[in-house]
Amino acid sequence: MNRRMVLNTLGYISVANAILMLLPTIVSIIYREACLWAFLITIGISLLMGLLLILLSRPGTKVIYAKEGFVIVSYAWLIMAGIGALPFVISGEIPSYVDAFFEMVSGFTTTGASILTDVEAMSKGLLFWRSFSHWIGGMGVLVFVMAIIPNISDRSIHILRAEMPGPEVGKLRPKAGDTAKILYLIYIVMTVVQIVLLLFGGMPLFESLVHTFGTAGTGGFGVKADSIASYSPYLQWVIAIFMIFFGVNFNLYYLILIRKIKSVFKSTELWAYLGIIIVSITLICINIYSMYDGFSETLRASVFQVASIISTTGYATTDFNLWPVLSKTVLLIIMIVGACAGSTAGGLKVSRAVILVKAVFREFKKMLHPRSVRVVKMEGKSVEENTLSSVTTYFAVYMMCVLMIFLCLGFEPFSIETNFSATLACFNNIGPGLGSVGPTSSYAQYSDFSKILLSIAMLLGRLEIYPLILGLNPVVWKKR
Amino acid sequence: MNRRMVLNTLGYISVANAILMLLPTIVSIIYREACLWAFLITIGISLLMGLLLILLSRPGTKVIYAKEGFVIVSYAWLIMAGIGALPFVISGEIPSYVDAFFEMVSGFTTTGASILTDVEAMSKGLLFWRSFSHWIGGMGVLVFVMAIIPNISDRSIHILRAEMPGPEVGKLRPKAGDTAKILYLIYIVMTVVQIVLLLFGGMPLFESLVHTFGTAGTGGFGVKADSIASYSPYLQWVIAIFMIFFGVNFNLYYLILIRKIKSVFKSTELWAYLGIIIVSITLICINIYSMYDGFSETLRASVFQVASIISTTGYATTDFNLWPVLSKTVLLIIMIVGACAGSTAGGLKVSRAVILVKAVFREFKKMLHPRSVRVVKMEGKSVEENTLSSVTTYFAVYMMCVLMIFLCLGFEPFSIETNFSATLACFNNIGPGLGSVGPTSSYAQYSDFSKILLSIAMLLGRLEIYPLILGLNPVVWKKR
Repeated sequence: MNRRMVLNTLGYISVANAILMLLPTIVSIIYREACLWAFLITIGISLLMGLLLILLSRPGTKVIYAKEGFVIVSYAWLIMAGIGALPFVISGEIPSYVDAFFEMVSGFTTTGASILTDVEAMSKGLLFWRSFSHWIGGMGVLVFVMAIIPNISDRSIHILRAEMPGPEVGKLRPKAGDTAKILYLIYIVMTVVQIVLLLFGGMPLFESLVHTFGTAGTGGFGVKADSIASYSPYLQWVIAIFMIFFGVNFNLYYLILIRKIKSVFKSTELWAYLGIIIVSITLICINIYSMYDGFSETLRASVFQVASIISTTGYATTDFNLWPVLSKTVLLIIMIVGACAGSTAGGLKVSRAVILVKAVFREFKKMLHPRSVRVVKMEGKSVEENTLSSVTTYFAVYMMCVLMIFLCLGFEPFSIETNFSATLACFNNIGPGLGSVGPTSSYAQYSDFSKILLSIAMLLGRLEIYPLILGLNPVVWKKR
Repeated sequence: MNRRMVLNTLGYISVANAILMLLPTIVSIIYREACLWAFLITIGISLLMGLLLILLSRPGTKVIYAKEGFVIVSYAWLIMAGIGALPFVISGEIPSYVDAFFEMVSGFTTTGASILTDVEAMSKGLLFWRSFSHWIGGMGVLVFVMAIIPNISDRSIHILRAEMPGPEVGKLRPKAGDTAKILYLIYIVMTVVQIVLLLFGGMPLFESLVHTFGTAGTGGFGVKADSIASYSPYLQWVIAIFMIFFGVNFNLYYLILIRKIKSVFKSTELWAYLGIIIVSITLICINIYSMYDGFSETLRASVFQVASIISTTGYATTDFNLWPVLSKTVLLIIMIVGACAGSTAGGLKVSRAVILVKAVFREFKKMLHPRSVRVVKMEGKSVEENTLSSVTTYFAVYMMCVLMIFLCLGFEPFSIETNFSATLACFNNIGPGLGSVGPTSSYAQYSDFSKILLSIAMLLGRLEIYPLILGLNPVVWKKR
């Protein structure tokens, strides 16, 4: 274990955190808010900690392996959320540290689950910060650091791999740092386009920024009690479409950039993603038609909610908790699937779902012809047996984690529906669930124990289980 | 496809069905019930159909492969339930054929889900028949036929494999027919012991038979509206313990018979099974302590319900629907796990759960040391990669089937909890679920569409998915 390199990188993370916090600080200066001091104190702590770590840990070698990647990623996320929670507590706007930590884990993991019961009473600086954390967490905390710090490590692909979601991490360029830069460039351009479109629709600048961060990171934090419901149909459509866009594998956008548009249309994952969206929207449209005023409103409500749940964003334009069982069931199922690998979304990921379905079909053929050898194909290439077994095993560990958390939530006095959907909504980084954690409620009612549990669920979901469990395991830390 | 051999075997099944129906016929003679005629007519139909099939299909070769095994098993189960439902309709005691079919699928698959709203009003002959179907279905319809008919096929292991639950079918003897005979012998001895113990506790003969059939097949049909609640603590304990016994892999009983007791104690699956039972009982005991009168009553209620759900029997001594969320969550989770492979129980099976957990741990090690080769061990032997991938893929197809059925049930006006637990309770061959399908309710409220859907779920669960889907697929039937 290259401990010095780990501490060194964590130092950079802490400094990066301080720099990122300058933005909400500026917001609180503009709006002349008291939370300014909370930000300044936190920036001081973060900077001091970061510089100390960097200075005290001059690494001899920059070589790291998978192990170091997991440790760096796990602690980096804990540090970001842990320090990020301070301004809420210092300013007194969220008095409990557990609550503030939950809120920031929810922010960085782009979940959007909130313990706030009155979001409209919060100061603008803090609202900006929690939404900005979506934007940072969406593409990845470390991907950000790698994009801005030159040559942080020769083997930083291990960090990228530990943080990027999906069964396989595609290297766009030979150097991990270059890949990180390209991804961030695409991300920034799409973000700017959405901000412009929202401004064009008459949304004020502050709200445009906040909602774009929430959409881009597929997070879901907003500034209004009714989420997106009170905005114009145009604005709702813009957000709905961008939620779907940000759920697409970013490698496809890179392919468009380098003019390989044919390969984009050949993407199995993209078609599966769009297919699931269309089927879900159709089912829900038919099911809720009688509840809404005409076709265009029904369609908008369906598209928005489906886009929001499958991209694991969690914005809402209507209380889908009041929808009939079929629609709620559809939402629960797409909660599990999630969007594409290599996007900012959470969930199991469409590519994994496609591989699982193909593995099942192969098993059917195997049962009939036990001696035949068959290869699972995906995106035109054959999937290695190793990847295949990783995907099926990931599904097993995913379900085990979900069931464990669901079991532990049993200590709360809520219904099975509430607890199960809370587990899925946090684990898959969505935000709102059904029942008592529906889109019009919050997670405030859960006990501190459950809030910590659900924070772990959010981190497990965002980091796709292995890095967090391995990275925080002291045995891994000690082992050579 | 050896069609003649398939039709020939199905002919034997139909004849066997007629012979088995003689028992409830005797019961209806003893009690001088009107349903006697319903049985006699059905026996006539079944015998005629069977003899015609046997006579018209003289097979040239007895050689069959996996394909024929799936086709035989799927149609055999449909024929058994399809003909078995006739006496209910002919006697008029269940007027709707769909209802009667659901009831008999539930019987043969040892589910125990019922559409009867007043079980105590039924005639004894029909009650005996539906419970007896548990006993037949528990060990397997075809295993029974293979045990009594000599040399039905030289390759009948394919039939055994398609019908027996669990990831691997252990051949106790080189000949499949001998294995079938040994299994039935153990089954009969245990059944007789339980009948004697129930009689000893003062349960009338008829009720002892019915409840033993329900326990042995881990089915759950009874004769009283409150299931087992009104019986004495002694009788409840006997049934609880035998439910756990019938959930153990029958190979272990064979090992005891041939005095290999050491190997029994080395069984990973057995220890895991007992471990899950003890943990579940402890959790529930603590959770429901305040609801019951003293420790012994709490313990009995916990042990009975846990034994009933994990063995997928479905008897109840209390309305666990009224238990707190934690206990209900525990029950939902052990619904999925089920009991041991090679037992009469349903569910995913403990051995699969153990293999899944071990596969996950291996994946963790693989993440740290990507180039190392590690073998998963089970029962002292290393698990082949092929078996491992079959198990993880089975889990995926299992969850897909569960989600599909859960989605289709969305058309019913019930809660998410009701629909989800109904899916799990039918798929895992348990019977009662939570909410509107709890132990004090029935499945009568579901529409015909959902009853057929849940019948398919029960068959999918009992036959472990692949045989049914492949066997009923016309493509498989046609292909050479």
